[in-house]
Amino acid sequence: MIVIMKPSATTANIASVSARIEHFGCRVHLSEGEEHTIIGVIGDVRAIDREQLERMEGVERTVRIQKPFKLAGRDFHPQDTVFTINGKSVGGKQLIIMAGPCAVEGRESLLETAEAVKESGAHVLRGGAFKPRTSPYSFQGLGEEGLRILAEARAQTGLPVITEVMAPEQVPLVASYADILQIGARNMQNYALLHAVGESHHPVMLKRGMMSTIEELLMSAEYILSHGNERVMLCERGIRTFETYTRNTLDINAVPLLKQLTHLPVIVDPSHGTGKWELVAPVSRAAIAAGADGLIIEVHPRPDEAMSDGGQSLKPKRFTELIVSLQPIAEAVGRTVCE
Amino acid sequence: MIVIMKPSATTANIASVSARIEHFGCRVHLSEGEEHTIIGVIGDVRAIDREQLERMEGVERTVRIQKPFKLAGRDFHPQDTVFTINGKSVGGKQLIIMAGPCAVEGRESLLETAEAVKESGAHVLRGGAFKPRTSPYSFQGLGEEGLRILAEARAQTGLPVITEVMAPEQVPLVASYADILQIGARNMQNYALLHAVGESHHPVMLKRGMMSTIEELLMSAEYILSHGNERVMLCERGIRTFETYTRNTLDINAVPLLKQLTHLPVIVDPSHGTGKWELVAPVSRAAIAAGADGLIIEVHPRPDEAMSDGGQSLKPKRFTELIVSLQPIAEAVGRTVCE
Amino acid sequence: MIVIMKPSATTANIASVSARIEHFGCRVHLSEGEEHTIIGVIGDVRAIDREQLERMEGVERTVRIQKPFKLAGRDFHPQDTVFTINGKSVGGKQLIIMAGPCAVEGRESLLETAEAVKESGAHVLRGGAFKPRTSPYSFQGLGEEGLRILAEARAQTGLPVITEVMAPEQVPLVASYADILQIGARNMQNYALLHAVGESHHPVMLKRGMMSTIEELLMSAEYILSHGNERVMLCERGIRTFETYTRNTLDINAVPLLKQLTHLPVIVDPSHGTGKWELVAPVSRAAIAAGADGLIIEVHPRPDEAMSDGGQSLKPKRFTELIVSLQPIAEAVGRTVCE
Amino acid sequence: MIVIMKPSATTANIASVSARIEHFGCRVHLSEGEEHTIIGVIGDVRAIDREQLERMEGVERTVRIQKPFKLAGRDFHPQDTVFTINGKSVGGKQLIIMAGPCAVEGRESLLETAEAVKESGAHVLRGGAFKPRTSPYSFQGLGEEGLRILAEARAQTGLPVITEVMAPEQVPLVASYADILQIGARNMQNYALLHAVGESHHPVMLKRGMMSTIEELLMSAEYILSHGNERVMLCERGIRTFETYTRNTLDINAVPLLKQLTHLPVIVDPSHGTGKWELVAPVSRAAIAAGADGLIIEVHPRPDEAMSDGGQSLKPKRFTELIVSLQPIAEAVGRTVCE
Repeated sequence: MIVIMKPSATTANIASVSARIEHFGCRVHLSEGEEHTIIGVIGDVRAIDREQLERMEGVERTVRIQKPFKLAGRDFHPQDTVFTINGKSVGGKQLIIMAGPCAVEGRESLLETAEAVKESGAHVLRGGAFKPRTSPYSFQGLGEEGLRILAEARAQTGLPVITEVMAPEQVPLVASYADILQIGARNMQNYALLHAVGESHHPVMLKRGMMSTIEELLMSAEYILSHGNERVMLCERGIRTFETYTRNTLDINAVPLLKQLTHLPVIVDPSHGTGKWELVAPVSRAAIAAGADGLIIEVHPRPDEAMSDGGQSLKPKRFTELIVSLQPIAEAVGRTVCE
Repeated sequence: MIVIMKPSATTANIASVSARIEHFGCRVHLSEGEEHTIIGVIGDVRAIDREQLERMEGVERTVRIQKPFKLAGRDFHPQDTVFTINGKSVGGKQLIIMAGPCAVEGRESLLETAEAVKESGAHVLRGGAFKPRTSPYSFQGLGEEGLRILAEARAQTGLPVITEVMAPEQVPLVASYADILQIGARNMQNYALLHAVGESHHPVMLKRGMMSTIEELLMSAEYILSHGNERVMLCERGIRTFETYTRNTLDINAVPLLKQLTHLPVIVDPSHGTGKWELVAPVSRAAIAAGADGLIIEVHPRPDEAMSDGGQSLKPKRFTELIVSLQPIAEAVGRTVCE
Repeated sequence: MIVIMKPSATTANIASVSARIEHFGCRVHLSEGEEHTIIGVIGDVRAIDREQLERMEGVERTVRIQKPFKLAGRDFHPQDTVFTINGKSVGGKQLIIMAGPCAVEGRESLLETAEAVKESGAHVLRGGAFKPRTSPYSFQGLGEEGLRILAEARAQTGLPVITEVMAPEQVPLVASYADILQIGARNMQNYALLHAVGESHHPVMLKRGMMSTIEELLMSAEYILSHGNERVMLCERGIRTFETYTRNTLDINAVPLLKQLTHLPVIVDPSHGTGKWELVAPVSRAAIAAGADGLIIEVHPRPDEAMSDGGQSLKPKRFTELIVSLQPIAEAVGRTVCE
Repeated sequence: MIVIMKPSATTANIASVSARIEHFGCRVHLSEGEEHTIIGVIGDVRAIDREQLERMEGVERTVRIQKPFKLAGRDFHPQDTVFTINGKSVGGKQLIIMAGPCAVEGRESLLETAEAVKESGAHVLRGGAFKPRTSPYSFQGLGEEGLRILAEARAQTGLPVITEVMAPEQVPLVASYADILQIGARNMQNYALLHAVGESHHPVMLKRGMMSTIEELLMSAEYILSHGNERVMLCERGIRTFETYTRNTLDINAVPLLKQLTHLPVIVDPSHGTGKWELVAPVSRAAIAAGADGLIIEVHPRPDEAMSDGGQSLKPKRFTELIVSLQPIAEAVGRTVCE
């Protein structure tokens, strides 16, 4: 860390900041510029509270030198994290494609979709049993009944299942049915929930909040990792910007940037990232070309009857066409869709 | 609701959309423009899923006519909601000033601050016992011990206490110590938590998410109201924008806009809304001039020793000066700071 | 257009809005809902000022049905615009790759870069002679001397030249040297400049403003088209969001969305869109996979000596590798990089 | 400036960065941390291009220590800039209120408005003769005829006139009629225009771009100041955010922040800052309470007939009420509305 003192800082101010730093076991390196004195902090700065230093007299601001994420960062974990889910590898050469309806709406409909997406080449079945909805009057999901239907679809198709968990006390229940726990965008900074999934032994997919920076996403991953769960995937699902033509703005830069900053697998959700089914296929292709490790895509047999998010769902036929179109792009970047 | 059909929509498309609408018990009113046919939907449209209609063939988009918030909205509840907390009125002529440290850091420090803010004219004591922190390595609050200290400060000063609740299962515990339950910005769309505080009998202060729209804020209030709790205050605490000089951008427009749209009291948090203590006083004055019903302000006896958010905290002396400066502004808009 | 009346609107209010609409030669279609009366406007609504209607008594808001861009839109011009620049086709099967330094810094350096990018397969040479810079103390470009150097590079390599024009009175000068006039992001809504290039006979590349919507971009294209110049390319170059890790957030959704909304060619600028050279290659691949018609990329023989934007420039060797890697992706989406 | 080297930087990398810095006449101060070497740059760093350093091998990033605006900043010009316009003081105790229609629409209407706003207490008449409009099909202003009408209104009322100038070649024409040259938000970074008004001898009001940071606003002011014109006012007029209920988000924090960072007067435009006339009065009061030096407000005798921006215009009666309500707030912050 570096502390930039104000031009008006006194010798006493500098001495007092230095003393505070040394109190935490770090060493100090002074550098006097023409206008500002700069105090370099040497040692393990994690013990020092930057904000505290920033409000000491004579301090203009502090600058962090080290990255705040240690477990999630690549600096001390240079090799890619690769793990398997029911025999499917995530983070390796093989891309992982997750597909299914936004919400589980009923047994027959889900079984039909599960068969269809398996047929098209998907590796994981998605479907929400607990649904976060902006309005208290909207369909909130089937709850445990939805989980049971997902488990039945898994038994029938062999596809592992990913579904959202919305509260710490739901973790054991959801983990008893699902293979991957999904943390939704609205809960990316629900720290009680991150703590709970960090202590579970299930793989987690952590979605980026629509208002969250890359660094905040990695800090939320750090919560999960620091509680002992190392099987974490990150998911870019679009951020909120001033543009209103699309529901969200998919941050394609985040894909190669995350691949640089972290060893964790990076999944892209083009359904939420665009909000329009017509854009799902080209943006899926873009995500793979940019280096994503997988996709999570909403597929519904009859999108115009879907109970939520149908506007961004693909019909199974279009999903199949998309999967086919992904293969040459995957190959162009040294990956593969189908084993 | 209105459904705008594409120029290419067929008569069959229009018939099928109309049938769907009538299936939900609404009536249809067709209007044929030069390029587009418009379908007006008459009746209780809340039963109809807009997204579902939007993905029917031939549909370009739908337009909502009615506001989605009924209980929080002013249309069916024109008079201001006014309620009392330990004898202090909220939402009436009297402004409500809440003050205290960001986090409860210790017994002595909190009691000292509580006495100081009471002396300056604050009506409610704030202080966090459970702290949401971006980093798992930062101070996370004293937990129940912090709640006990808050209760002691209340007993000593007579000031009611507001503190944050972060998870549904914490609600009974926090409610057993605090007078007002605070929902933090990161949890504005934590629906399990909104549900839980909606079922409690404690007043709630709901903070706007840093990237949540006014409509989303009102929909989250709707969750609480629809579970039976009518004592809800809204809090504008700054939104995230591209500007980086300040920690957040306080949305001053939101104050008079919320006063138009809703009957609920509107509180402003200039400490988080600016992130810099030098801006707290002028922005507090602006908030009162714009029509806010109260303020929540971070005050710390020694901000440079605070364990979180010290950079935006006022010293008690500056807080007293601020309170004094607010009175003529309050009077100018027909309000009062001190009873 | 549709006019939504307030629940409190009187019969007189409705009559008066209807009269105003009919005054402009349009017809009126009334639809009475349970809460709101809706007035449909039939006929050529472009003569009617929406904002004027919106402030008439009893009016809640208006909703536009037709798109505001006619010349730029696909509705009345369904086939793709394809045109040639010095024999290179833009908007067809062949992708167009423009490359070169951010700014023209000197004769030798530019000639070296021009030869290098031609060798690598670029079709157009880019380079700024007039540079918009945030600081008045930064290098502002070589001006006409820069244009002369660009013309010499064109003569030597045969590559057509694209360069920015910053003021209406510069248009004839820049057009006398360059093949394509570039409108920079900061000037996307400089209407005097749009007017001037609209009256020139040179192809134009219009960059999206860093905080401009897709609709505003198309309206700015409409300015150029409506002044008679039909050879317009649009350029997505990243938008400004809350994310600070990257210089801008490249809006990948904009690529397929623009291809749907408009017949004009869509170019992507991954150099400005990311601001980091390490991200240029993966994001270039993403842009082609998403359906872009071309790329504009900063290449500099010695980026660490570049006078502006070197941090996002590729060295020629890396640019060559990028071009090679684009070919299979181009083929996967039915395009080609090299003729 | 500080250069942070990567953990992987070699001794040769450090030597080569140091040599580059010394080449520009600055001195170097090395500080070796546990992971990173930090290079402090001592001397006049304005000669050094940060971006150039950032792309040298081994460099992670640079951190600027000094503010980039020297002429606009308060550091070397601590006292407030106060100047007079036709005998009205700007930047002193007296607030300056500018009012009038968005666009000059005709002689009679403007003269009527001018008399009305003078009567209400306005000090300056506003009105656009050249109008920047998103659509090429919208009313673009009366041009020079509008300027003549403004001059006639000035002759009749004695009020000085502010109007927008949109292109460098218009500056002499507009300056021959108007007292204050306005740079609109869309032109805040039109550097040719900033250069031109910098060389004029007329006071300038520079509006913040809807997508521009505080620092960029100050850098644009720096352009004008560095060309010799010291009579510059800044105008906060709302920024673009994700919130769509209001047309813009007025950045109230910017008012006290600008007063800290710069000596130039700060004006607030609540009409564009909110986009809704119902919000203009409370937000005007907030602006004065926050420390603004003046307001620019749209007033129209018949807003529902206005040719642009009528939705945010006040009727003269409401404007008079607003002015009356501002006086006690002005007094509360040590200012006055009426001399």
